[in-house]
Amino acid sequence: MFIGIDLGGTNIAVGLVDNTPSVIAQASRPTNAKRPYQEIIRDMAELCKEVTENAGYTMADIQGIGVGSPGTIDSTNGEIVYANNLDWHHVPLVKELKTYYPDIPMAVENDANAAAYGEYIVNGDNTESFLAITLGTGVGGGIVLDKKIYRGFNGAGGEIGHFTLVHNGEYCTCGKKGCWEAYASVTALIRQTEAAIKANPDSLMRKKAEENGSVSGRTAFEAAKEGDAAAQQVVDTYLEYVADGISSVINIFQPNVLVIGGGISREGDYMLKPIQQYIDKYTYCKDIPQTQLKIATLFNDAGIIGAALASAM
Amino acid sequence: MFIGIDLGGTNIAVGLVDNTPSVIAQASRPTNAKRPYQEIIRDMAELCKEVTENAGYTMADIQGIGVGSPGTIDSTNGEIVYANNLDWHHVPLVKELKTYYPDIPMAVENDANAAAYGEYIVNGDNTESFLAITLGTGVGGGIVLDKKIYRGFNGAGGEIGHFTLVHNGEYCTCGKKGCWEAYASVTALIRQTEAAIKANPDSLMRKKAEENGSVSGRTAFEAAKEGDAAAQQVVDTYLEYVADGISSVINIFQPNVLVIGGGISREGDYMLKPIQQYIDKYTYCKDIPQTQLKIATLFNDAGIIGAALASAM
Repeated sequence: MFIGIDLGGTNIAVGLVDNTPSVIAQASRPTNAKRPYQEIIRDMAELCKEVTENAGYTMADIQGIGVGSPGTIDSTNGEIVYANNLDWHHVPLVKELKTYYPDIPMAVENDANAAAYGEYIVNGDNTESFLAITLGTGVGGGIVLDKKIYRGFNGAGGEIGHFTLVHNGEYCTCGKKGCWEAYASVTALIRQTEAAIKANPDSLMRKKAEENGSVSGRTAFEAAKEGDAAAQQVVDTYLEYVADGISSVINIFQPNVLVIGGGISREGDYMLKPIQQYIDKYTYCKDIPQTQLKIATLFNDAGIIGAALASAM
Repeated sequence: MFIGIDLGGTNIAVGLVDNTPSVIAQASRPTNAKRPYQEIIRDMAELCKEVTENAGYTMADIQGIGVGSPGTIDSTNGEIVYANNLDWHHVPLVKELKTYYPDIPMAVENDANAAAYGEYIVNGDNTESFLAITLGTGVGGGIVLDKKIYRGFNGAGGEIGHFTLVHNGEYCTCGKKGCWEAYASVTALIRQTEAAIKANPDSLMRKKAEENGSVSGRTAFEAAKEGDAAAQQVVDTYLEYVADGISSVINIFQPNVLVIGGGISREGDYMLKPIQQYIDKYTYCKDIPQTQLKIATLFNDAGIIGAALASAM
């Protein structure tokens, strides 16, 4: 039995993870990020006990505790080097959490890396090279090579969403211009949908957005499925951005498996098929085995499961 | 003492490599690529003996033979899976070469990977994560992780030049559009220089090209150094393409060291400084140690030295 902790700017979510691996119990508290880090970590420790005992276990049953945190992580020293949305600099997270449970193995990972590791455990077929990308507010990613999370020499590696896809293109949150994230994230899809509604005021997308109260990542997909041509154009263009980025990282890594996650990936084959067609067309060398594309299966649990299992990596 | 073989579509170059590592003797023959592969490999074997004995050694002094070959390589089985410019399909190179020297350890690597490994040995400071990029006819690259060449699961990994930098941009030789290679190779620089000469017929670039007989990768650099504004614009734009690609692969890998090679890199600090400034400006996280950028030092010998040492990897 393992514990995974998803430390976010808004909430601390703690899950008890069995060997399936599945989250069998969960609890959360607000982060209240402005508190001293010692108080936040005390809440984490209390949540661990709570979630374990509520499920009928004791802390003696816990084989590892893993934390997924935003920001740049020094996993070797168990330290959060810098996390923007917590305003944490050089917080010795593992050392502090060890004061509560000194005998339990612990790990801290970047949250995107933890989620990628979770998908690897479940969908990576125990392979030597694996990529996960998450199409969400941004485009997150994680690289698992030789069954270990790849972090680069400074802990900041694996930012798959921040290579340039459109030189001198849209501004990205990272400060660069034209990153893949600025075209393939849900945020970007919403921007693309809004522009298409403005240019096509009669589009079904407008009605969908009004019903929903706002434009979302689903607006264009829903309208396209009902035959709206402008929406289909938005979906086609968006998926081409996604596919062009995926073919790019495949050319660099040639991983055994690449998993696509995030809310958009719930579209399943409706998104996977055109992406696969694009990759098949533009793949660098056709005479050799090709990367297997898969849709993520853990979704919201990936972070907790990945963090939990990273404590045993 | 090692032997490195650079197998090209035009020539077979064989070098004797000492422990420095330096190429201390060299010999070559035309490939005559249309011959049966057995004849080409017999020439390789004869050149090994020739270069060794001419330098006063015997084959008993040779600790390893490594071959750098274009194309997709199965290094585990010592096979050339597919090499376009040799028209080779599934050639059992190591097995065939072993018929001449059964007791010498052998390896075959993709030529760009071999060159990257050579630069790693000399300039990689024995680090855990290293990238080499070569700005030549194309943009080649190699990835060395955990002191081993990274090849992906099918041997075709490490094509750093073939991620998209300009979505729907210039056609690339690989069949995709807008690859980094299509903007940052010497071929691309020549195209960019030719376009600038056409738009600026009075530019010093025109005179330089006429003196030289044609536009080369040096034309714009030479004219820019003599104060030609149009040439400076070509150089600035080209180096921005180079730098944007380098910052992209840094965001993905965060390697300890990244080495820039190829003919253009002989410009040294004149090219490295603006690239470094670009990276410093757009780097993803400024609060952590940064990748060290270096200019390659092996140049033409990188392939032979890298192949030679890969036989002992």
